[in-house]
Amino acid sequence: MPRTNEPGRSVSSRLLQVLFSFGPDQSALSLTDLERRTGLPHATVRRLAMELTDVGALSRNHDGRFTIGLRLWQLGTLAPLTESLRTSAQPFMEDLYTALRQHVQLAVREGAEAVIIERLSAPRAPGLVSQVGGRLPLHCSGVGKVLLAHGGGDLIDGVLSGKLRRYTPRTVVDPTALRGELAECRRTGTASVRGELTTGADSVATRIVDGDGMVVAALSVVVRTGSVKHQAALPSLIASGLGISRVLGWRPGIRIRDV
Amino acid sequence: MPRTNEPGRSVSSRLLQVLFSFGPDQSALSLTDLERRTGLPHATVRRLAMELTDVGALSRNHDGRFTIGLRLWQLGTLAPLTESLRTSAQPFMEDLYTALRQHVQLAVREGAEAVIIERLSAPRAPGLVSQVGGRLPLHCSGVGKVLLAHGGGDLIDGVLSGKLRRYTPRTVVDPTALRGELAECRRTGTASVRGELTTGADSVATRIVDGDGMVVAALSVVVRTGSVKHQAALPSLIASGLGISRVLGWRPGIRIRDV
Repeated sequence: MPRTNEPGRSVSSRLLQVLFSFGPDQSALSLTDLERRTGLPHATVRRLAMELTDVGALSRNHDGRFTIGLRLWQLGTLAPLTESLRTSAQPFMEDLYTALRQHVQLAVREGAEAVIIERLSAPRAPGLVSQVGGRLPLHCSGVGKVLLAHGGGDLIDGVLSGKLRRYTPRTVVDPTALRGELAECRRTGTASVRGELTTGADSVATRIVDGDGMVVAALSVVVRTGSVKHQAALPSLIASGLGISRVLGWRPGIRIRDV
Repeated sequence: MPRTNEPGRSVSSRLLQVLFSFGPDQSALSLTDLERRTGLPHATVRRLAMELTDVGALSRNHDGRFTIGLRLWQLGTLAPLTESLRTSAQPFMEDLYTALRQHVQLAVREGAEAVIIERLSAPRAPGLVSQVGGRLPLHCSGVGKVLLAHGGGDLIDGVLSGKLRRYTPRTVVDPTALRGELAECRRTGTASVRGELTTGADSVATRIVDGDGMVVAALSVVVRTGSVKHQAALPSLIASGLGISRVLGWRPGIRIRDV
């Protein structure tokens, strides 16, 4: 409920507009960029950017462009879900990486997207689309399918009734076929994706469950198509996912619940 | 130069006051906590907290307390220094961790403190004081001494003329002794700390240098006192530090410069 007629609200939302102008593809912005992205007048943008720089939320490059500052990064590390999940998952992700030597990533759902919260990268494995903090679609990434499958009926209906982008010729965009995959994923706890998001890259993913049986995250291994048999990667992936879930309080017999 | 008489500035700094109320020891705050920490009226705090929650910068717990939200965390991941450093350092840190099975941490300097930007933890190694995003003093932590030694004369004079907190009976707080250690650290590129910050925990640290010869970070291994000889950990630590520096563009022959 934006109440832009209220002066205080308006000023603080302008500040947030400036902050949230930054994104994975726009991590360094000039004042002109910020003006264009926010639609705010030059003097306002300049004042807000300077104020954010004063407190360390933004930082200014040699070329005059602004980037996210170290103090904002520090503030972000306090986000409880990501910090406790990352800490619990890290040793398991390292061991999985040691065993498989492939990209390993951990993601949570935010709205209708998956967000990568931790990643270990194999130097010689295929290029990853996403960095830590990056987003992946729910309908055609490994972690996305796992998170979508356990996100509840309303989420699934919403995603399947919307536009399902075809990233590659192999992207599954048929709602009926997707519903079948999601039901299978709820049964097995895993999802397997072959070249649906990036041609040449496969992904196998498994769910991470907390002590209440809630699926709070998904763990995946991303491999070059044909380099690793999914059936060979799955057992270690599943064991790692169960290990992380145990650290979060899950025990065998706790019923898996949809969000 | 705060200009609190300017209404717009005042509103946006209140928003930042609310945000920066959160810290490592205060990662979940109630409205009452926020009122106390900001000194702002209840209605103002409530409105700003709700607005921050609306955009995902804050998130609200079941118990009504606020925490940092996932969108702010995502924004933080765009901070360029930490992201490129973390990405470059990660494989070297993993290999060092595999070789030594001890805590490995990477830190940068922010003002007169060191900030941990990445950490790999050994389950059976001694407890670490700091998490990712946490701060360490410059004068008595391994990474801190390395960053202080290469921070330039003004920084060193400022830190040594200020109050040097004695964290343990072993903390070196004599400015002359510290100056000697820092000169030695500039010569060797490494620092060795024995129980100065936490009794029972030692640390060896080395500098990370970029293509301009600037010391941009420090890498350390933290071990239980007596468990690992510093001389045994140093060669692999130094090699890892040089490896990360090479990824950042440093080459043998590039002169190390103070900030």
